[in-house]
Amino acid sequence: MRILILANGSEPSSGLLGSLREKCDRFVAADGGGNTALKMGFPPDTVIGDLDSFSHAGDFDGELIRDPGQETNDLEKALGLARSLKAVRVDVLGATGKRIDHTLKNLSVLQQFDPFFDTLAFYDDLFYTRILPRDFSLRLPPGHLVSLFPLSGKVEGIVTQGLRYPLNNEPLENGRRDGTSNETDEGPVRIQHTSGTLLFMTALAPGLL
Amino acid sequence: MRILILANGSEPSSGLLGSLREKCDRFVAADGGGNTALKMGFPPDTVIGDLDSFSHAGDFDGELIRDPGQETNDLEKALGLARSLKAVRVDVLGATGKRIDHTLKNLSVLQQFDPFFDTLAFYDDLFYTRILPRDFSLRLPPGHLVSLFPLSGKVEGIVTQGLRYPLNNEPLENGRRDGTSNETDEGPVRIQHTSGTLLFMTALAPGLL
Repeated sequence: MRILILANGSEPSSGLLGSLREKCDRFVAADGGGNTALKMGFPPDTVIGDLDSFSHAGDFDGELIRDPGQETNDLEKALGLARSLKAVRVDVLGATGKRIDHTLKNLSVLQQFDPFFDTLAFYDDLFYTRILPRDFSLRLPPGHLVSLFPLSGKVEGIVTQGLRYPLNNEPLENGRRDGTSNETDEGPVRIQHTSGTLLFMTALAPGLL
Repeated sequence: MRILILANGSEPSSGLLGSLREKCDRFVAADGGGNTALKMGFPPDTVIGDLDSFSHAGDFDGELIRDPGQETNDLEKALGLARSLKAVRVDVLGATGKRIDHTLKNLSVLQQFDPFFDTLAFYDDLFYTRILPRDFSLRLPPGHLVSLFPLSGKVEGIVTQGLRYPLNNEPLENGRRDGTSNETDEGPVRIQHTSGTLLFMTALAPGLL
């Protein structure tokens, strides 16, 4: 099962929300994300959260799950639901961009939930963002923006193929060496690493949807 | 000397730009940030960068520093200038918010340049963001939002005073335990830690300007 989650960060374009909605089996809004979904004409199957932000609870006829626990944020609640539904792929919109503390918290949540799905990715209108497995391959057009970030502070043993500025068994370390603003060369991209949590961001492309 | 830098991320409100401009001795725009500054009616003293984004070079009568080096981004160039001018305090606007890869890259730059100034902080209309020294104190109003993020992946030995959800010699680790959405209690805030890079974000308040 492929699940789409809309969190309460920056609003996606209706083009992006519509494209992902079409491809996913189920659409879950995290609390205030439900307001965005309804406003944009894409009623969610489920709204989950402490429901302190969702303002349409009275006239919403989908599934409503109230989870008041203050130990988890609304995105964590939605991902917990995706996990209990045995989702294989989860696409998340609205997890980044609005507030810096929410963006960083949600990157921590991304890391926390990544092991439970085949693919867990954040989407916004510019970027596709995910944590990489130890050995990762993807076909992208030549000249396509690719950025890497060591989410664990340091990531070691990075080997890349198909990038303009290659890494050959090198580390990335926050505050010392980073891998932003790389781009694809000819051929498929392959990125391997031996330790740490490596965040991958690439410009959105049709094949990533 | 206190220097204000405007980078090319999300535009600040003119109220925030004006307040910081007034308090700083010198105003440096990083490349495309110069367009924002001029548009908002605050001509910078200096525009620095590879100048591929600054579109007013012809009719700008301030200092123009063209540095085409592709190893550093425009914010790094502006911070390098602040360093060479022996700035003590540097306030940076427009470093976060627009693109997730630029935001993360600039947090890496924040870590890289933090040792060279007494205070280096990112400002946007919602947050004041900086890396904490091992022992940090600040007076904030009660009930004020405070978030912590382990920029080095893991930060150990955190002891807080004056926060509603205190940490008592505990670690924060990305993907496991985070410190976002805390808030101030009565009395001043004190945050100590023994290792790692701890990012501090708090809601903007007049005393932080």
